[in-house]
Amino acid sequence: MEKEDLTKEQLRTLQNCDESGLRTPPPRLELLTSSMTPHIQRTNRNKNWRVRTALNFKGIEYDTRPVNLKKGEHNTPEYENLNPLKLVPTLIIDGQALTQSVAILEYLEETRPEPALLPKNPIDRAKVRAIVQSIASDIQPIQNLRVVKHSKQDDWGNYWITSGFRAIEKHLKETSGDYCFGDSITLADVFLVPQVYNANRYQVDLTEFPIIQKINARLNELQAFRDAHPSNQIDCPLIPGV
Amino acid sequence: MEKEDLTKEQLRTLQNCDESGLRTPPPRLELLTSSMTPHIQRTNRNKNWRVRTALNFKGIEYDTRPVNLKKGEHNTPEYENLNPLKLVPTLIIDGQALTQSVAILEYLEETRPEPALLPKNPIDRAKVRAIVQSIASDIQPIQNLRVVKHSKQDDWGNYWITSGFRAIEKHLKETSGDYCFGDSITLADVFLVPQVYNANRYQVDLTEFPIIQKINARLNELQAFRDAHPSNQIDCPLIPGV
Repeated sequence: MEKEDLTKEQLRTLQNCDESGLRTPPPRLELLTSSMTPHIQRTNRNKNWRVRTALNFKGIEYDTRPVNLKKGEHNTPEYENLNPLKLVPTLIIDGQALTQSVAILEYLEETRPEPALLPKNPIDRAKVRAIVQSIASDIQPIQNLRVVKHSKQDDWGNYWITSGFRAIEKHLKETSGDYCFGDSITLADVFLVPQVYNANRYQVDLTEFPIIQKINARLNELQAFRDAHPSNQIDCPLIPGV
Repeated sequence: MEKEDLTKEQLRTLQNCDESGLRTPPPRLELLTSSMTPHIQRTNRNKNWRVRTALNFKGIEYDTRPVNLKKGEHNTPEYENLNPLKLVPTLIIDGQALTQSVAILEYLEETRPEPALLPKNPIDRAKVRAIVQSIASDIQPIQNLRVVKHSKQDDWGNYWITSGFRAIEKHLKETSGDYCFGDSITLADVFLVPQVYNANRYQVDLTEFPIIQKINARLNELQAFRDAHPSNQIDCPLIPGV
């Protein structure tokens, strides 16, 4: 699949190389994310956040290269060439540009398996992935800013997150321990924290979801999760109350 | 994780056992799906279809137990106990009830790896999963009937499928051969066919997407895909033009 590989020019650009191949600074992983302008705070941030959390949890160093959606930087031919969906994030890793947070996280799990974010037993893995998809498919895409805007309904985000959280709360009643699935951190936790953050932004009444609240609070005390928080990113402006 | 297991009573019910444990008929896989009433034809059918295709492709025998969403059979305590999200499908397999099509398909791939629906190389797997998520997260949930209804916009389904297909068509220009990813059938193909069917129902102009059209036509000639088509299911009524 040679056509899958990045062109040499793409790689040079991404790795800050000149034509001789000299690199400054030395090559690292790069995560192209949306800039943290006030506008962007409510857009694809969830997906970047997931990837950052997993990278932190696994102790993988990376650089962040913000993509300012408000300035349309995701609409440039260069970005579209890397990511035809024009969505963030794109992770530059192992000489390839990977897109879609679920695909990126599965890749990290396959290539950097320790510390693990999926259990070993296939049934347990399926149950963790079911929680992941309950967020990644059944909630987040519907309350994504582009969909909220298109809906022209003020309570759109609140409605779909509340509905999705009712299902997840029931699910967690069966599967949770200290975290979403038993007492170990899994991909389900990685997906939960940003979704709870969005729930707060859409003023979802979380008192209905005591398990989600308890797990979220516990996760937010962990270093990998704290460091991944949008307020701790290089391009996050100081916004009161965020 | 013993609490994860089905109760004995649940298992007896699902396997048609009496209390002595005698089974009639012998236990098989069961796929709980939505009934194929005209109303249901446009609801969660996509997700059942994906699972059926993968089961067929891997040569795994199964029985189908339709769940009539119109009659509210997904709202019964029994069904909710199996699937808190009250969505179809639920796959009863290896003594467990699994939900969420992506999680189910990853489970099948892990426990019944041949014939494979994911490439061996992690980068290739990530690229297949990116196409999968472009459908499973970025298109299908937004054009799901419950969301379409809630939007109160006539062109909602058409708009989001067209937008998503533009991204996928570009993606496929890079990755496709005979199928979505090179010349082998992958999970991306399993997800593509039901989404194209939905595109037709929402009158999406497919002439804009020649690669999607070509691959879809090729897939629909394969036995595993033909057998998974809704019109070939036990509970599908004869509906002209469907």
